[in-house]
Amino acid sequence: MDVIRRPKIDDLVAGMDPMQLLKDMQQGFINYSQGRSVIPPVGELILPERNGEVHIKYGYTKQEAYYCIKIASGFYDNPALNLDSSQGMMLLFSQVTGAPKAIMLDEGYLTNLRTAIAGALVAKAMSPTQVTGVGIVGTGVQARFQLEELVKSGFPVKKVWIWGRNPVKAKALQTHFSRQFEVNIASSTTELAQHCNLIITTTTAKNPLLTAADIQPGTHISAIGSDTPDKQELASDILGKANLVVADSLSQCAVRGEIFHATAAGELAPNAAVELGDLLAGDHPGRVDDGQITVADLTGVAVQDIAIADAVYQAFLAE
Amino acid sequence: MDVIRRPKIDDLVAGMDPMQLLKDMQQGFINYSQGRSVIPPVGELILPERNGEVHIKYGYTKQEAYYCIKIASGFYDNPALNLDSSQGMMLLFSQVTGAPKAIMLDEGYLTNLRTAIAGALVAKAMSPTQVTGVGIVGTGVQARFQLEELVKSGFPVKKVWIWGRNPVKAKALQTHFSRQFEVNIASSTTELAQHCNLIITTTTAKNPLLTAADIQPGTHISAIGSDTPDKQELASDILGKANLVVADSLSQCAVRGEIFHATAAGELAPNAAVELGDLLAGDHPGRVDDGQITVADLTGVAVQDIAIADAVYQAFLAE
Repeated sequence: MDVIRRPKIDDLVAGMDPMQLLKDMQQGFINYSQGRSVIPPVGELILPERNGEVHIKYGYTKQEAYYCIKIASGFYDNPALNLDSSQGMMLLFSQVTGAPKAIMLDEGYLTNLRTAIAGALVAKAMSPTQVTGVGIVGTGVQARFQLEELVKSGFPVKKVWIWGRNPVKAKALQTHFSRQFEVNIASSTTELAQHCNLIITTTTAKNPLLTAADIQPGTHISAIGSDTPDKQELASDILGKANLVVADSLSQCAVRGEIFHATAAGELAPNAAVELGDLLAGDHPGRVDDGQITVADLTGVAVQDIAIADAVYQAFLAE
Repeated sequence: MDVIRRPKIDDLVAGMDPMQLLKDMQQGFINYSQGRSVIPPVGELILPERNGEVHIKYGYTKQEAYYCIKIASGFYDNPALNLDSSQGMMLLFSQVTGAPKAIMLDEGYLTNLRTAIAGALVAKAMSPTQVTGVGIVGTGVQARFQLEELVKSGFPVKKVWIWGRNPVKAKALQTHFSRQFEVNIASSTTELAQHCNLIITTTTAKNPLLTAADIQPGTHISAIGSDTPDKQELASDILGKANLVVADSLSQCAVRGEIFHATAAGELAPNAAVELGDLLAGDHPGRVDDGQITVADLTGVAVQDIAIADAVYQAFLAE
């Protein structure tokens, strides 16, 4: 049984081929949508007095070596203690005997990474042909990860607009990427949406930050932040107006995330969403012209955890 | 973050006061029934092709230091590989920051232990005044643990009858305890029930092993084995005939275990069961005379995992 700690995990990831990780992630979503993965409902533990929430995501893909349990928490008062709000670990167990094989003390890093890799995968699969501007709503850790993985995926990032409530964090994010590409700070999400036809939202907002009136024809939006029933980044009318709405998991998005809200609001018909794995497998055409508005609701599925944990552990074993 | 492995865990437990562990377990059940613990539904991952099942039990008691996640699996083909069918680990995280504090690689040991401590607690709380014979149905690891913890709890164990499908394992269990007290092997569960007014069932049976006709007046039965909707050790008419039926968790027993089956069969009225923590707190009188038949349905609750994990980790920190 291997205990793999943080600096080692960083080293292992640094040595990996980003394109292979994208392929692994894609295959994970396809396995899931094609019924080859067993993914029970997300476990959730809420600590309201601590401003904390814990998600337990777990499951396995048939015929593989391991089953995976991922514990990822957000304790949102941690930054005041100079600690990352993300905490947690990923666990791999033998599918044959149940014996623990690997404990990855990733401190939330692999969750951030797999979320961003899924973001890059979706951006490549659903964006219009010419992305004139990439808009990032939110200035936290995931905002940075999304941009980094987008670049690593080979996606052409030239002009970026960022928007966040905290000007200091917006400035820091701008500085972080300013040698790689042009980064502008938008004064509002409306301004951001005017410049961008790929928008990625990465906040923990409980009230929508963008409405349908903000969104230009031909825009793709990936909503990353909402993974619980009470979080919402996009006004429901955006999903109502969209030509295509994709869910990373139809069953999860029925009870959490943007699709849950838009369906509850009557803006989106039940069963209107398409599952990401079906789109990635080519069973759904996806975007059919550059004028369409498309939305991907990414709540985070255990197949992503399986994909990243397997990849890291294989790299560890190969050393 | 401490990683505590199996031999160390054994040492720590060996140094503990069994009476204190009983008290901790009792307080855990009382906290739970009095609403001081947050225990979400059990997570379950089934690997039918591997004859394996994984239970994830988790939660916390308010105002305490840690939240607990317990992963316990049964992979029932393991013995053929010379491996214990029980596998798993217990995890403690800070309730303040979510940071992992302890990983206990207990290989299912602490689950076996806390299950047996709860069994001893219930035997002491619910048995008739004079226990003439203790009957153990099943000859696996948990059968042994139940007898051991019963003895450690100070319960007067004099004559024991054991019954199991496997005569070799029955003989081994008899030999294991024969220097401590009289151990008889029963030829049937009916014979066992004739001799015993405390019966503890510890099997993974999917069909009942005892019926109401077997049970003598004044018997207490603790059903330990059934923790899923498909396992059942007691015919529903036993619960129908019982004067008192106790659930370790009313919400869990509504969807798994003996109470679930008896309610579905119409033998037990919904809401007829009493919760263990209410009985232990004195809010329910429990057994009121020695002629009553009583049943405790113990499906295993995360408060038990919290209690044992906390106790082991405190002992570790105190060293």
